[in-house]
Amino acid sequence: MIQRLAVIGVGLIGGSLALALRRAGAVAEVVGCDRAPEALERAAARGVIDRGVREPAAAVAGADVAVIGVPVRAVGQVLAELKGAVAAGTAVTDVASVKGAVLAEAEAVYGEVPGWLVPGHPIAGTEYSGVEAAFPELYERRRVILTPVTATEAAALARVRAMWEAVGSTVVTMPAEHHDEVLAATSHLPHALAYALVDSLSGWDERQEIFEFAAGGFRDFTRIASSDPQMWRDICAANRANVVDALRRYQADVERLTERLAEGDDEAVLALFRHAQQERARFLRLLEGRS
Amino acid sequence: MIQRLAVIGVGLIGGSLALALRRAGAVAEVVGCDRAPEALERAAARGVIDRGVREPAAAVAGADVAVIGVPVRAVGQVLAELKGAVAAGTAVTDVASVKGAVLAEAEAVYGEVPGWLVPGHPIAGTEYSGVEAAFPELYERRRVILTPVTATEAAALARVRAMWEAVGSTVVTMPAEHHDEVLAATSHLPHALAYALVDSLSGWDERQEIFEFAAGGFRDFTRIASSDPQMWRDICAANRANVVDALRRYQADVERLTERLAEGDDEAVLALFRHAQQERARFLRLLEGRS
Repeated sequence: MIQRLAVIGVGLIGGSLALALRRAGAVAEVVGCDRAPEALERAAARGVIDRGVREPAAAVAGADVAVIGVPVRAVGQVLAELKGAVAAGTAVTDVASVKGAVLAEAEAVYGEVPGWLVPGHPIAGTEYSGVEAAFPELYERRRVILTPVTATEAAALARVRAMWEAVGSTVVTMPAEHHDEVLAATSHLPHALAYALVDSLSGWDERQEIFEFAAGGFRDFTRIASSDPQMWRDICAANRANVVDALRRYQADVERLTERLAEGDDEAVLALFRHAQQERARFLRLLEGRS
Repeated sequence: MIQRLAVIGVGLIGGSLALALRRAGAVAEVVGCDRAPEALERAAARGVIDRGVREPAAAVAGADVAVIGVPVRAVGQVLAELKGAVAAGTAVTDVASVKGAVLAEAEAVYGEVPGWLVPGHPIAGTEYSGVEAAFPELYERRRVILTPVTATEAAALARVRAMWEAVGSTVVTMPAEHHDEVLAATSHLPHALAYALVDSLSGWDERQEIFEFAAGGFRDFTRIASSDPQMWRDICAANRANVVDALRRYQADVERLTERLAEGDDEAVLALFRHAQQERARFLRLLEGRS
């Protein structure tokens, strides 16, 4: 049971966590912190937070757990504002999509990664943003990756782990570098490809018509291109080397497929499509196995 | 009102059309034709067809409209089997995803495109196949593209158009070459990219983990990679030049994005993501405008 939870950045991710912890009876009080007063008002009106404050240092005072729910580009600033404000016994975690960047920001501010900081990333989200989009089921049967370092306090890690488990998630730990490689492949790469496809097609001559004759397959394939552009630009920038590497590996594979198709090696094309279909079926079984 | 409809190839597409026409009260009798006797049995059991025959020539006898509901690779064989069997006053249409290939098959069989043939393509489908997957709502508020040629009989065109309008679709006509270019971009390209992504990621070292930490965005992005591999290989082969061209144009755009990201031109990356998000919003408004 968390007596006081601080949510710094009350949007889809932090807001959904607060709602889920409340529903689970796993938190007594939620203090929200946001630059935007109207975000705090909306969060209070929706019952996401009990009260709001403007400064991260004020939010973290007396909290068992503080969740930095801001996008990756803003984590460093919040860490700087928390300097000297985190009491012994308070665990701080974040939800940013790139963990190496968070560790680097922490080192820049504190000279080393503080023991109370448990870098984390819930593998959950939608293409929507803001506290209006928050809902308590967001983390059910999802994975949360924590990337502790040697200095991370065992008690802080345990508290953050228990928090995510209380909302129905499975917690996995791994090194930050490994997290950033895996997420570059499964999340950052598809987002970049979806944005690139919509942008690419909109520039073709048939522009108006191309979208006119697109259907459900295209809608699903490009759903993630409706995500917040600045947030995803920041994620790609924060995980630049891995995303560039993933883009290049994918391009090499698409180039090979294009060559096979161009030269009429239809058996090779079929083998690739078939293998992909089988692998996706395996992926769906993995997803189902969690429920 | 269609007195007798022949559905040659009773799967998702032909089966859904029969169900939709029945529900609309727009057909009196449905004759199914399929190589697989068990497909005809299942179709009859589901109320999709009134009776089944094994030969296309038998199916088309006495029909007002015959729909060739087989995949693109099998259309030529059906056209050959229809030789001499299509009576004056019968309109024949197909549903294949590549129209240039259908015209070429018709010319190969008949020396020219017969006046009774109205090449067509409903922009609708799911990742499932077979008559079990058929449902009557499949064509509501969808587009159907017809690609008549100069020789196409006006009466045949009108009858096929009326059939699709009766099930809630909007009918558009355009040249086959144009259809094949547009569909290469909005449908064939995304399928090839989705198959390539799943295949590519499954070959990376972290294989097991990569799928383990994929979530909803990845699931939607790769949904179309669960489609029938042979059908999509055949579509890509039948529309080879356009699909190869679309792949190369897309690759050039992804290459540009990769370069921008690699060299740290984050403003350019943001501009691309933002433009894509806006264009997808426009696409969604187009989709909504139909309903």
